[in-house]
Amino acid sequence: MPMTNQHMLSGYRLLDLTRAVAGPTCTRMFAEMGAEVIKVESAPNGDMSRSISKLRNDRSLYFVQQSLNKKSLCVDLRTPEGLALVRELVPHCDVVVENFKPGVIAKMGLGYDALCELKEDIILCSISSLGQTGPLSSKPGYDFIAQAYAGITSMIGDPNSAPSLPLAAIGDVSTGVTAAFAVAAALLDRHKTGKGQMLDVSILDCYYHYHEVNVHQASGSNGAIVPHRNGSHFAYICPAGVYKASGGYVVLAAFLHHWPDLCTAMNRPELAADEAWATDPARLANIDVVIETIEQWMQTFPDVDSLLKVLDAHNVPCAPVLTVNETLTYPHLVERGTVRTVKDKMAGEFQIPGHPVKSSRYAANNAFEAPLVGEHNRDILKSVLGKNDNEIDSLTAAGVLQSKDL
Amino acid sequence: MPMTNQHMLSGYRLLDLTRAVAGPTCTRMFAEMGAEVIKVESAPNGDMSRSISKLRNDRSLYFVQQSLNKKSLCVDLRTPEGLALVRELVPHCDVVVENFKPGVIAKMGLGYDALCELKEDIILCSISSLGQTGPLSSKPGYDFIAQAYAGITSMIGDPNSAPSLPLAAIGDVSTGVTAAFAVAAALLDRHKTGKGQMLDVSILDCYYHYHEVNVHQASGSNGAIVPHRNGSHFAYICPAGVYKASGGYVVLAAFLHHWPDLCTAMNRPELAADEAWATDPARLANIDVVIETIEQWMQTFPDVDSLLKVLDAHNVPCAPVLTVNETLTYPHLVERGTVRTVKDKMAGEFQIPGHPVKSSRYAANNAFEAPLVGEHNRDILKSVLGKNDNEIDSLTAAGVLQSKDL
Repeated sequence: MPMTNQHMLSGYRLLDLTRAVAGPTCTRMFAEMGAEVIKVESAPNGDMSRSISKLRNDRSLYFVQQSLNKKSLCVDLRTPEGLALVRELVPHCDVVVENFKPGVIAKMGLGYDALCELKEDIILCSISSLGQTGPLSSKPGYDFIAQAYAGITSMIGDPNSAPSLPLAAIGDVSTGVTAAFAVAAALLDRHKTGKGQMLDVSILDCYYHYHEVNVHQASGSNGAIVPHRNGSHFAYICPAGVYKASGGYVVLAAFLHHWPDLCTAMNRPELAADEAWATDPARLANIDVVIETIEQWMQTFPDVDSLLKVLDAHNVPCAPVLTVNETLTYPHLVERGTVRTVKDKMAGEFQIPGHPVKSSRYAANNAFEAPLVGEHNRDILKSVLGKNDNEIDSLTAAGVLQSKDL
Repeated sequence: MPMTNQHMLSGYRLLDLTRAVAGPTCTRMFAEMGAEVIKVESAPNGDMSRSISKLRNDRSLYFVQQSLNKKSLCVDLRTPEGLALVRELVPHCDVVVENFKPGVIAKMGLGYDALCELKEDIILCSISSLGQTGPLSSKPGYDFIAQAYAGITSMIGDPNSAPSLPLAAIGDVSTGVTAAFAVAAALLDRHKTGKGQMLDVSILDCYYHYHEVNVHQASGSNGAIVPHRNGSHFAYICPAGVYKASGGYVVLAAFLHHWPDLCTAMNRPELAADEAWATDPARLANIDVVIETIEQWMQTFPDVDSLLKVLDAHNVPCAPVLTVNETLTYPHLVERGTVRTVKDKMAGEFQIPGHPVKSSRYAANNAFEAPLVGEHNRDILKSVLGKNDNEIDSLTAAGVLQSKDL
């Protein structure tokens, strides 16, 4: 095992039956932190995500981003021999992760009870859009379907028109991380009790959990408070929003104790004392004038950078609204490894988001590779199941095991 | 210890020096899963968040939501005796979590090196807006400041006007969960190696990590692909967006293989075969007509529910855009415990989001209480530090320890 695999989670082995975004994110957190992740792919073409998003040399950059340091086992799951191989792996794994539609793995003979018969202390983590239980659990789902049920979509966009959809898989990815937390907690529990468990993590529950105030405000006021979307500005503090500057947008937080600092920055100290401007409620009552005043001042700067310098000098919380393309070379993001460069054997060099956990003991962005279809068939069957070359050759000849340079 | 504290993470003790949202979310994940969390609050009034959001009987519902099953130790941190008590606790804790501005805890004498001298294998988790390193690390930050630097804000809202800000602390809360994952992973590492470590988790890195495709598309195309916000509809698949129905908005996903199902639902089977409609690129080229056609059909239903019934019957992924107030009684959310009712000794009964990790071994939403200011001063100093009543009484008389019915 190369040194790069010495990390917080090395020593654990996961059987990865996931597809799409949320599931692979969970196992990705483990793979990039040293665990052995056996990604089971369906023959003949492997994971469907190998054909989506940007391709270079027929290689999906999306697949590479999601699959670093994972091992690929490509089996024909429609054959009894293929399914038997997967079942044979279970006793050698600590955790099984899956994100099929609820009920599907049970039909495949890999439900929690069946897994427990194969390994008594197995941990099963099931990830789904709307959960394993409840009247909606059988509905097909995506990130933004769960987001709408969670009341999050209603909080995004202009109040007088349709809500906006964030074009990033916030719910998918963060649910994958929540599932990784659940698995790590279950492993700690197994250390203590010797027992496994089944975990149910859904995008719906995760999105709902992001209401830091909305749910208790609506409920605790008996419905008198009606949380609602408010476009580019917060509804209950001011200034807190997106402001138009010369050549771009700037996010500004100058509410409460930050307001006097902004007044000083604007060279309008009188607005810190004037009672029509001094408090958040007063500014909210007059928000259009506040926004206009700030934006007019912003227009006196030639560009966003020169404006930010003055705001920073006065300690006013602020940020440029960076485009994704701008983030790729932004010094802070590059220096921290928030932006990470990977080099793939087929697709070459490109950038992806860095690993979000940074540690004093281990590197965050190791030079891992993503596997080809079935690249580790032989390795896994030998090292985990103890099969010999002859057995593996005949499974390959029968088409139960498959591989592809893709 | 009551039975309710038997959970995945019981047996661990965390020293909680956090405030605001992201930090308390991290320790909340541990407290609600059985760990002993000692929340250090500053005398005399305790955590500032005790006075924010909706109050009932002077009790902040926000504080209750964030503090279930935490213990409160309220000390005067401006006194050497107060700081000494905090330092004295370190050797008895597995983990310290903090989210001061980078550098502040070092000045308090509680930086990682100082903590290691107190306990060799301590795990320190530092949570921040923009990270502990890099040129921007000393900037003041909030969720939406980090979001703007991460390029996420640029992906939300109408393409022809200012970006929209989601009015839920998505980055804050999900960063807290990511930090909880990091801590759990570090505890697993300590099991194996006997060593602690310092963890650096930022809202910026977490938000950036949510770009499932944008970063590699921009980078891997050498800038030819420019990911951008697109209002209520996805920019690269169709239909996928928010649609206006009678009496409300509906989220619909009918791209790729879902399209023929929508055509059947609309009783327009010819649109599944017509080449001007049959593929996602064709529909994207004509998106205004596609939206109009779907919305006109939706208007033939008297309300959202009757429309959803037909979409569900045809297995088309869909969801109502629920308001937060509507979620409180929505059957699926109530049945799953996604919505959770808590009963506080001061504020009475109200609802908050449920715990996002559901397990077959442990209950998810136990009947925990949030502490009063300094409620556990005596308990902690006796049970953890072995102090006697006389010592505690004199620390209290000196004002080093304080408490309040708040």
